[in-house]
Amino acid sequence: MNPASPAIDTESVTALLERGRTLATPVLRAAVDRLAPPMDTVAAYHFGWIDAEGNPSSGDSGKAVRPALALLSAEAAGAAPEVGIPGAVAVELVHNFSLLHDDLMDGDEQRRHRDTVWKVHGPAQAILVGDALFALANEILLELGTVDAGRATRRLTLATRKLIDGQAQDISYEHRERVTVEECLEMEGNKTGALLACAVSIGAVLGGADDRTADTLEKYGYHLGLAFQAVDDVLGIWGDPDATGKRPWSDLRQRKKSLPVVAALAAGGPASERLAQILAADAQKSETEIADFTEEEFASRAALIEEAGGREWTSQEARRQHATAIAALDEIEMPEKVRAQLVALADFVVVRER
Amino acid sequence: MNPASPAIDTESVTALLERGRTLATPVLRAAVDRLAPPMDTVAAYHFGWIDAEGNPSSGDSGKAVRPALALLSAEAAGAAPEVGIPGAVAVELVHNFSLLHDDLMDGDEQRRHRDTVWKVHGPAQAILVGDALFALANEILLELGTVDAGRATRRLTLATRKLIDGQAQDISYEHRERVTVEECLEMEGNKTGALLACAVSIGAVLGGADDRTADTLEKYGYHLGLAFQAVDDVLGIWGDPDATGKRPWSDLRQRKKSLPVVAALAAGGPASERLAQILAADAQKSETEIADFTEEEFASRAALIEEAGGREWTSQEARRQHATAIAALDEIEMPEKVRAQLVALADFVVVRER
Repeated sequence: MNPASPAIDTESVTALLERGRTLATPVLRAAVDRLAPPMDTVAAYHFGWIDAEGNPSSGDSGKAVRPALALLSAEAAGAAPEVGIPGAVAVELVHNFSLLHDDLMDGDEQRRHRDTVWKVHGPAQAILVGDALFALANEILLELGTVDAGRATRRLTLATRKLIDGQAQDISYEHRERVTVEECLEMEGNKTGALLACAVSIGAVLGGADDRTADTLEKYGYHLGLAFQAVDDVLGIWGDPDATGKRPWSDLRQRKKSLPVVAALAAGGPASERLAQILAADAQKSETEIADFTEEEFASRAALIEEAGGREWTSQEARRQHATAIAALDEIEMPEKVRAQLVALADFVVVRER
Repeated sequence: MNPASPAIDTESVTALLERGRTLATPVLRAAVDRLAPPMDTVAAYHFGWIDAEGNPSSGDSGKAVRPALALLSAEAAGAAPEVGIPGAVAVELVHNFSLLHDDLMDGDEQRRHRDTVWKVHGPAQAILVGDALFALANEILLELGTVDAGRATRRLTLATRKLIDGQAQDISYEHRERVTVEECLEMEGNKTGALLACAVSIGAVLGGADDRTADTLEKYGYHLGLAFQAVDDVLGIWGDPDATGKRPWSDLRQRKKSLPVVAALAAGGPASERLAQILAADAQKSETEIADFTEEEFASRAALIEEAGGREWTSQEARRQHATAIAALDEIEMPEKVRAQLVALADFVVVRER
């Protein structure tokens, strides 16, 4: 297989994502139902199960890559996919805890085509329900009462700490003029790689896998996360808003120092230098001034990033991380079918358009 | 012993609190040092180890009742006090996670005579560092790698969920005209009782105690927490600001539906009815209008609460909860010295002035 243009088994990936959603969602909903009012309602809104008025809704609840991975993870250790369900649910709870808090900290008003929780229910509920989902994640795992559940919770806790480190870096980078490509990759590894890594090890750990197997699965997951994020960074500038659910040029609006931007700034040459001048001037502007930019002003910045090579570098980085992820799978034994499915999921992640 | 006016062994209590502080603080500081910058600095400020400029400080870091209890808890199960240290640290981390988030949600600007974290370092750092302390609590326990560590973490997680439930109730009560005494006690049991209960069971669980012993210790801790909170509610209105570190009439300023207020409103009679009228009118006022109240306006409200019996009822409630806590200790075996020390700590909690 050529990692530059992976031949994805779309049918297989769709089935895997669907299986993850089908097996994990009822358990996730039951977990969220444990929350006391009004937190249960706020969480249900966040997950897209109800609308802002409280009516049932079948809103976009995300791609569900993590639950699919957690079930495959159990199978990688020779266990039944169902063994991974508490892990899938715990990882989803932590992921959504971080979304609730990050959206508030970043002032993001939209997610998955809908107003964010702090926008609809206020900052206090966003903090509180985020906290509750984090606690619930540990509760779901630890009530299994096994040594492996303790190991799984420890891995999830360490991943959560990295997630928090990544958000801290993300916030501090916003105030800095220059961020290196290495710093950006480290931040994205913390923000996206660590939890995806945990999703790929948690099912195996619950299925009794040893630490070496779990660590290797995490290596696959970590690089998969970096590939995922590189694709996300491209979509954050050039993605189709109808597909991504974000506003056009969303990362440029937020002056995010995402991979295409830092790579373009690091590239040197006329376009890179021109971009540096423009972004330095933008940094002096207020948020309102940036929000008032015309379509053309965003488009010209995006064009300079592309001209300086930021878009191409990031797309190649996605393929490099994809290759590293897949190579890790060869370090351990697992059923061939599971290996093929992990490869197919990795392929899906790098070619997706949302 | 007469629970109405406990004869406290002050020397013994001071020694117990000191022991908790001495054994737990270095481990707590080492745990906080694990945080990536700037979160380590923000946390150190919160704990009072440095001032807002980053200079070392020996600020008031609280009474440290919980660490003292966690060490006694280990001894109650026949283990060495040191066995309780990771539990003491984990409970302190969770307690401070909740303070960081609650101060932000409640808009509280002062704690322990100092500006709160969100006031000094901004809301994002208060959210982020709170999250990090919560994760760290689980990390500290789970890295012990034992089945008992998993059991302890599960109990801590359940206590944290109650803490969050209590904060949710507290927020929702602020918008309600009437809160019953029962609702207020339930909220305070969640906000204060649950984590204190966990402090009293966690050392025992780490020392291998069975669930019945742990549950009974939690019963003592839960009622101790309610006694503690009843005293706090009295101090929140009539406490000496120099001793409490809070502004004069702090709970009245925040229109808190604390025990003295709800008990006074439930009492009936002329003072109760007059108080209900005044508080109903206050509820229509803005926060700024309340902040502009004169000393006399606060004093007259406090006097009405007292006249309606709210102060006396709450003080009696503290003694009732104290008695229930102490009675629970008789349900299990433990070294007599430990039992006496738990009694002395309970006595201390109900007579303190800060």
